[in-house]
Amino acid sequence: MSLTLYHAEPVANSAKVLIPLHEKGLPFESRYIDLSKYEQHEPWFVAINPEGQVPVLDHDGFIVTQTTVINEYLEDAFPEAPPLRPNTPQGNARMRYWNKFIDEHVMNYVSIHGWTRRVAYFAQSTDAETFEKMVARIPLVEQQRKWRKAREGFDQAELDEATRKVRLAVDKVEAQLTETPWLAGDVFTLADVNFFSHCAMMLERLFPEIGVRSELPHLFDWADRVKARPGVAAALKSEDRTSPEALAFMAQKR
Amino acid sequence: MSLTLYHAEPVANSAKVLIPLHEKGLPFESRYIDLSKYEQHEPWFVAINPEGQVPVLDHDGFIVTQTTVINEYLEDAFPEAPPLRPNTPQGNARMRYWNKFIDEHVMNYVSIHGWTRRVAYFAQSTDAETFEKMVARIPLVEQQRKWRKAREGFDQAELDEATRKVRLAVDKVEAQLTETPWLAGDVFTLADVNFFSHCAMMLERLFPEIGVRSELPHLFDWADRVKARPGVAAALKSEDRTSPEALAFMAQKR
Repeated sequence: MSLTLYHAEPVANSAKVLIPLHEKGLPFESRYIDLSKYEQHEPWFVAINPEGQVPVLDHDGFIVTQTTVINEYLEDAFPEAPPLRPNTPQGNARMRYWNKFIDEHVMNYVSIHGWTRRVAYFAQSTDAETFEKMVARIPLVEQQRKWRKAREGFDQAELDEATRKVRLAVDKVEAQLTETPWLAGDVFTLADVNFFSHCAMMLERLFPEIGVRSELPHLFDWADRVKARPGVAAALKSEDRTSPEALAFMAQKR
Repeated sequence: MSLTLYHAEPVANSAKVLIPLHEKGLPFESRYIDLSKYEQHEPWFVAINPEGQVPVLDHDGFIVTQTTVINEYLEDAFPEAPPLRPNTPQGNARMRYWNKFIDEHVMNYVSIHGWTRRVAYFAQSTDAETFEKMVARIPLVEQQRKWRKAREGFDQAELDEATRKVRLAVDKVEAQLTETPWLAGDVFTLADVNFFSHCAMMLERLFPEIGVRSELPHLFDWADRVKARPGVAAALKSEDRTSPEALAFMAQKR
């Protein structure tokens, strides 16, 4: 059995798959993709994932893309490993409801704010000619537009709408966590992994006006419990190769 | 065991759940929700689904919302009924990849064009005061905005972008169907139900410039095979209660 994960830094999409791999104790080969060098748009990588995005799982030659799909695949393919899915009809429905909500109403909105910091550095520190060549080979039109905005700046209206969506999501999660210890009920599931990776882990940094610990007691207690899990801690310890220049740019943007 | 489905006409979201119920041969109580009377925003219905949307499944008191979640729930809860999920790790991953793609990159874009015809009639034939009261009680801000656009008209740029997305999706499906008989491989699955309900069943009507039979031979052959299934045919025969006035309005909009 051979598992390979193509991934970037342990945050957002890449964290979302690194966490289950570590939680389930599945040995895998890590293939780092350098987003600052636009490696995800290189022809060799697009031959693996035509959408030109990380992470990608290769299981004995079977390619799986899209984090939510990859994570359920790991549940189906390795039933003997510790489960991150309730595996009851009701529990699975609750987990999938949250996964869908996070995928469609949280992920991209947090991401826009993340891009104004991290990705904007890559886009703005590239000369115009190289940038145009890079954009031209991005497979998804939506991603081409997002890279242009990372260079030129996102509209304030778009950033405000993203903040509104994150505010709603955070309140919805806080309300759920007053009723159950984890998002889908009594056990830690892929829904917790999803919200943690795409929102909670960078909430205080990206949304200082929303991520106020005292106003979200259940959410922060939950986040502490997520971070304390050995599998999560191990996944987040994956090497961060962000350059000192990029880190300085991001620090400025706070 | 008691199953109740709250649903509207057998098209789009409602068709997407009516089809699996019939395909799996599961007896259920049908509760028709009249969208032309904004019944989905009535307090009694919002008490069942706080998002104020159909369809909703009630299984012995357990409420499931969101069509993709409902459909996987039926697979989990009734494993003895004919399956619409491959139930192999690879097959499930392929099915879920398509479901995610259709949910995020197809459904809303077809829907905008559908709304300019069907929903626009409800929105435009309501007096201003009643309309404002109706909008005020819609739980989701995005749906409030969509209803306003149904009354005032969608921007051409938005309609064009939707057409671009549908064109891409249709080509992607045609390419897949040159390789496999069904979207997720060798068997009919929830992915086929999804694309049929949200796009293929109204492709020729809503997008006459895209839905050209001779240019999409595999897609139309597939759609014919979908429609020929007894479960699908039975689901689509559910009563259509659209008023003659609404039908006349829609015919005009072609």
